[in-house]
Amino acid sequence: MSGLNATHDPARQSWVESANAKGTDFPIQNLPYGVFSQDDGPRRVGVAIGEMILDLTAAEAAGLLRPAPTPVFDGGTLNALMARPPDDWSRTRAAVAALLDAEAGPRDDLVLLRQDAVRMHMPVFVRGFTDFYASKEHATNVGAMFRDPKNALLPNWLHIPIGYNGRASTVVVSGTGIRRPLGQIKGPDDAAPRLGPTARLDIELELGALVGTPSSMGQPISVARAQEMIFGFVLLNDWSARDVQVWEYQPLGPFQAKAFGTTISPWIVTREALEPYRVPTPERGTPLLPYLREEGDYNYDIRLEIDIAPAGGTPRTVSRTNACHLYYAAAQQLAHHAISGCAMETGDLLGSGTISGPDRDSYGSLLEMTWNGSDPLDLGGVRRGFLENGDMVRLRGWCEGAVRIGFGVCEGTILPAPEQPA
Amino acid sequence: MSGLNATHDPARQSWVESANAKGTDFPIQNLPYGVFSQDDGPRRVGVAIGEMILDLTAAEAAGLLRPAPTPVFDGGTLNALMARPPDDWSRTRAAVAALLDAEAGPRDDLVLLRQDAVRMHMPVFVRGFTDFYASKEHATNVGAMFRDPKNALLPNWLHIPIGYNGRASTVVVSGTGIRRPLGQIKGPDDAAPRLGPTARLDIELELGALVGTPSSMGQPISVARAQEMIFGFVLLNDWSARDVQVWEYQPLGPFQAKAFGTTISPWIVTREALEPYRVPTPERGTPLLPYLREEGDYNYDIRLEIDIAPAGGTPRTVSRTNACHLYYAAAQQLAHHAISGCAMETGDLLGSGTISGPDRDSYGSLLEMTWNGSDPLDLGGVRRGFLENGDMVRLRGWCEGAVRIGFGVCEGTILPAPEQPA
Repeated sequence: MSGLNATHDPARQSWVESANAKGTDFPIQNLPYGVFSQDDGPRRVGVAIGEMILDLTAAEAAGLLRPAPTPVFDGGTLNALMARPPDDWSRTRAAVAALLDAEAGPRDDLVLLRQDAVRMHMPVFVRGFTDFYASKEHATNVGAMFRDPKNALLPNWLHIPIGYNGRASTVVVSGTGIRRPLGQIKGPDDAAPRLGPTARLDIELELGALVGTPSSMGQPISVARAQEMIFGFVLLNDWSARDVQVWEYQPLGPFQAKAFGTTISPWIVTREALEPYRVPTPERGTPLLPYLREEGDYNYDIRLEIDIAPAGGTPRTVSRTNACHLYYAAAQQLAHHAISGCAMETGDLLGSGTISGPDRDSYGSLLEMTWNGSDPLDLGGVRRGFLENGDMVRLRGWCEGAVRIGFGVCEGTILPAPEQPA
Repeated sequence: MSGLNATHDPARQSWVESANAKGTDFPIQNLPYGVFSQDDGPRRVGVAIGEMILDLTAAEAAGLLRPAPTPVFDGGTLNALMARPPDDWSRTRAAVAALLDAEAGPRDDLVLLRQDAVRMHMPVFVRGFTDFYASKEHATNVGAMFRDPKNALLPNWLHIPIGYNGRASTVVVSGTGIRRPLGQIKGPDDAAPRLGPTARLDIELELGALVGTPSSMGQPISVARAQEMIFGFVLLNDWSARDVQVWEYQPLGPFQAKAFGTTISPWIVTREALEPYRVPTPERGTPLLPYLREEGDYNYDIRLEIDIAPAGGTPRTVSRTNACHLYYAAAQQLAHHAISGCAMETGDLLGSGTISGPDRDSYGSLLEMTWNGSDPLDLGGVRRGFLENGDMVRLRGWCEGAVRIGFGVCEGTILPAPEQPA
């Protein structure tokens, strides 16, 4: 595969010993970027290596790393690096790998901290958040439930990577509590809606793509170009209030049902780190228009799991699926996003849409797993149609090979609804 | 009215003589904020006064104006002032009025420039753009055209200020060319969609509200509180590709049909300047839920007009309407936007939705004026169903009273579609 280089060599080891342990998410072949702080200190950029974080803000300030002519790690987000040309991304990745390489040996001029001793923050200033709907299984399940089981997929779905603009202000980092939202709810037999806490609080297991290179207003881009613009990926949980959604979504789409919180994992796994795990998109019976056709492998073989734990309980894995199921790859979504001339910007986040596999054990939402609450999940003596207060949801994802390229965790716990506004 | 003070006194005059001329949009009672540059110089904040601009960046640097303990006019946008407490907005407005007051007399320590000698820029960094659908006449017309004339208004419309998240990256200042978008188009008799330039390029006449004060994630706000968070208003044209929209919008709402450009007027008319022109929202047959009910007058009596000129032709006014028609006021839209706990941020822009009056001469879109192209407009020998390349569209808006509080113009010209991506 053309994009592979020394940073992918599975035999390479780090002098940070925990990075060489079998099963770590963060071997020297991964090197995902994140933002952390220690005590009450400022936000710093770091890279995960085994159980540790290498402080890149310190390394850059000390002159040990020079990603660009001016500093990129002093702003408390990854945006400055992401805005640099992709060649700088590769050069920086290679330079970080060299600093951590076992053959170079341990060095005491680097700041290395334990991951469990720092606080993680949003890795990126999310400029715009767009959420897609790219799993055929998910779109079919939702269509069967709410529209027509015989014509579950709408006619446009096989031609367009359907998506909508989401809300960037409530994209939060893993570990942030999610307050149960208030919203308008109207049952099929109610004469009028009422305001109340959602009774159908759901999750959506997604992959998030982060745009590094911007595009200009009025200038569409090809799928190949779109792929080059993507800096990396995160896990993403698009929390959803299904009862609010079903009442509000006609005709302009989901709004408050999905505006109260979207959780992402703290580590951005770079596109380059995922290069060895590229796979094709699924077979298509219906050809795509030329502007959406891809040449080569644009999906990734990323294993995905959902764990849920009731308050005080033990997490139980309720679904196992894979990002290879996505009918439209991130680059295809991005090319469609720009086809009208919509300008794409550094820090734009594109959610893949819920990633569902072919059966209940591989669905990416409770809506599907419990078939709209009618067939609750068993969490070990506790049953769940939708989420209760205190429930913890954790997404995990990784590529499995000679080494494991992991995303860490993307988790959140449900807090009680707020008071109604006075 | 409680919010009135000396800055509203209609007898007040400025030593800038053009500000005292009958019919100016920018008397001393208005004082809208904008961002401009001269030659290739940096972006500066200014206030419109008659035919001139007062350079506030220079005034602040010279110590003649002190809106806040640290500078707010040195960043090239209004966001820093907007993020200050509303008391600072009022104090700054009063201080600017004092600098320009006729009784104080002309002063030569201020930088005053002709508006026609500078270039205007985006007045604000738009954090998020949300577009609503708050005109009952518009929603009824669209529903009658595309769904069912007998049940034109969907059941949720009388209960929810329906809206969707738009695209902030392509909100541009008046005068920016709008490139005809490419998009997927499928006629009712076509077997499959094709990619091509939109053939149904439309306008939407809207008012845009700019959020100054942020709200916290997880914390809904009342309508009264929402009103206090609004810094000011602009005219807004939400350009739309109707053929793209009709094929893509199910089930997640408009996406690329409205992502290619949204034009705003360069001057932010402050909420305080509009205070004397408050009027009630229209009568409601169906009561709103308590969290959306307003006490007092939350709409504004703003006259609105749409002019269109073919390339090289004379502008012709094709519609005259008024913001008082809006069924939901901006504060109600903002309260609904935050009801789920969605965090609102400084620089968020809320489009009102197309403002249509009761008849063809007061509709806010070509879709309605030409009834989906079936009954073209006469532009003086030239007929238009939808926009052609080279067409110029100009929105104007003002409050009429003892003085005129104007918005200036919000205009854009249609450029040819780009090449398809290779």
